[in-house]
Amino acid sequence: MVNSQEYFINLALEKAWAYQGLTYPNPPVGAVITDNQNNFISYGVHKKAGTPHAEVNAIKQAFYNITKDEEILKLESSNEIHDYLHAKHKGIFEDKNIYVTLEPCNHFGKTPPCSQLIAKLGFNRIVIGALDTNRKASGGFEYLKKNGLHVEVLDQYTCKELLEPFSTWQKEPFVFFKLAMSNNGVIDGGVITCKKSHELVHKLRDRCDLLVIGGNTVRIDRPILDARLCDGKAPDILIYSKSKEFDKDIPLFNMPNRKVFIAANFDKVKEYKFVMIEGGEGMLKATKSLTKHYLIFRSPNFKEGNSPQFSHKLKELYSSIVGEDRLTWFKQLDG
Amino acid sequence: MVNSQEYFINLALEKAWAYQGLTYPNPPVGAVITDNQNNFISYGVHKKAGTPHAEVNAIKQAFYNITKDEEILKLESSNEIHDYLHAKHKGIFEDKNIYVTLEPCNHFGKTPPCSQLIAKLGFNRIVIGALDTNRKASGGFEYLKKNGLHVEVLDQYTCKELLEPFSTWQKEPFVFFKLAMSNNGVIDGGVITCKKSHELVHKLRDRCDLLVIGGNTVRIDRPILDARLCDGKAPDILIYSKSKEFDKDIPLFNMPNRKVFIAANFDKVKEYKFVMIEGGEGMLKATKSLTKHYLIFRSPNFKEGNSPQFSHKLKELYSSIVGEDRLTWFKQLDG
Repeated sequence: MVNSQEYFINLALEKAWAYQGLTYPNPPVGAVITDNQNNFISYGVHKKAGTPHAEVNAIKQAFYNITKDEEILKLESSNEIHDYLHAKHKGIFEDKNIYVTLEPCNHFGKTPPCSQLIAKLGFNRIVIGALDTNRKASGGFEYLKKNGLHVEVLDQYTCKELLEPFSTWQKEPFVFFKLAMSNNGVIDGGVITCKKSHELVHKLRDRCDLLVIGGNTVRIDRPILDARLCDGKAPDILIYSKSKEFDKDIPLFNMPNRKVFIAANFDKVKEYKFVMIEGGEGMLKATKSLTKHYLIFRSPNFKEGNSPQFSHKLKELYSSIVGEDRLTWFKQLDG
Repeated sequence: MVNSQEYFINLALEKAWAYQGLTYPNPPVGAVITDNQNNFISYGVHKKAGTPHAEVNAIKQAFYNITKDEEILKLESSNEIHDYLHAKHKGIFEDKNIYVTLEPCNHFGKTPPCSQLIAKLGFNRIVIGALDTNRKASGGFEYLKKNGLHVEVLDQYTCKELLEPFSTWQKEPFVFFKLAMSNNGVIDGGVITCKKSHELVHKLRDRCDLLVIGGNTVRIDRPILDARLCDGKAPDILIYSKSKEFDKDIPLFNMPNRKVFIAANFDKVKEYKFVMIEGGEGMLKATKSLTKHYLIFRSPNFKEGNSPQFSHKLKELYSSIVGEDRLTWFKQLDG
């Protein structure tokens, strides 16, 4: 059934997952707004640190969908959107519901607090997927309750799963393995996935602070490992290699503002918070104990070549189409 | 945006795809009912030949959702549901919209015509994804128009793609390849996918009229290839093999009401309408020119073993979770 609480929190979750990793150091968050009979009005997601939160994007879109006032669509910053809504809302949100995967923030960070905006607009019901247990932005639930709003916390497992990368990088490195495969698991022999997949990988490179790669890949592919497809930054690199001998003309060594480490272990990872591993069979095996999450870009095409000889129990967390390919986040079930 | 025509026809499509193959010899069809402001009320799908059509299932569920009259939920046959609705509808559908992926049927087959039911209930708007171009059940569009209803035909490409198997088996064999793989493409070394996937394969075996399998698989696995997990029928079997020598104690040879053919070619396929191929690398290669559709059950787990050396350009048509696995329908793009 649609028109149910479960449907809308899951819709918010699904929208948030599409930005997993891209919001670093912030959590991915999704929000959905409905009327008081739970008819869908709008959704919003947090897309990147420093840009509006999911609640603000959802409220902005709902305001437009209800009023058809195009002025609000021109506003990009949270401050402007907050101010505009404060001035113009005329109580239209008082009979609306908002579903949000994470407790609304309650502090002035890069953006004003969502809890105050929601209280000011006076929503009919606020449904929160999971409380924010580990950061200074928490307290939104208490604030909303104190202000007399009807707030519910679902404490939903899937909302906590969405937050696992965020919860991890708050205290230790969050490490994920990015793998590109053909439909039948082939990972070698040239380009496998489509341009849209490559663009998303570049966005993840731009956001992550360390990229881990195998020495053989560096020697054979002579990569640059930058984020040029999104005009992003080139992350620091750890080359996993027993030998420290590399041709320093390989482009990755010659990027400004990048550190490159070469080591036969992964100790360097501990100094970073958001770490992406790229590679094949050798790296899958070498990093198995380090890696809880896998991000797989899979082409629809069959291809001749080698698939990685690797054994691991995983669970699917989220999947969606990216161009011609399918992107899927997995989490390990082993040990 | 939700609350749009595109959203609801795509929702109907998605629901219908989950029964692809299972409706043989009927087409898979999905239907969605909304109110006149396009708020979702219900959906319905056609699940199996001889059971109610998608429109009837959607209308039955909508009737219950609106009236809370539990009597209708007890009715299983189309005739009973039609009669109950005729007697009790009280005009509640006159301001409702119905979205259906295929033109409503217009003839008395195993069930009464959906076009007459829709006309009688007097829907506000009827949106049809694709016309029924090739069977005696067509004419629903004309019938509805003649009866003064507001009917739109989208002629949507994706609705025609849903119908491709049905359009094919109307005139020639529809052949698809079913493959089970680990996350990294491994297809050998014992059971790969979960129980729910196996149950669905058994349903497909029950519905298909010929199952094609390689001689080596028969010799090594000594399978029964029946549909016991759904109490279904054991389909006829074509064993693709140069040698006609088989141990006739292999269980598949000893099923009642089953024909087993052994041949070094696929000529037998021409005598059937709905043909499933099961196998690995050898069969993928041998049946490449015969097969336009691939149904892949993929486990989330990595596994050591062999992935098929096979090259083919495909396009994803539909994907969903089945138990722990992911099921995906693909269509060839080559030649």
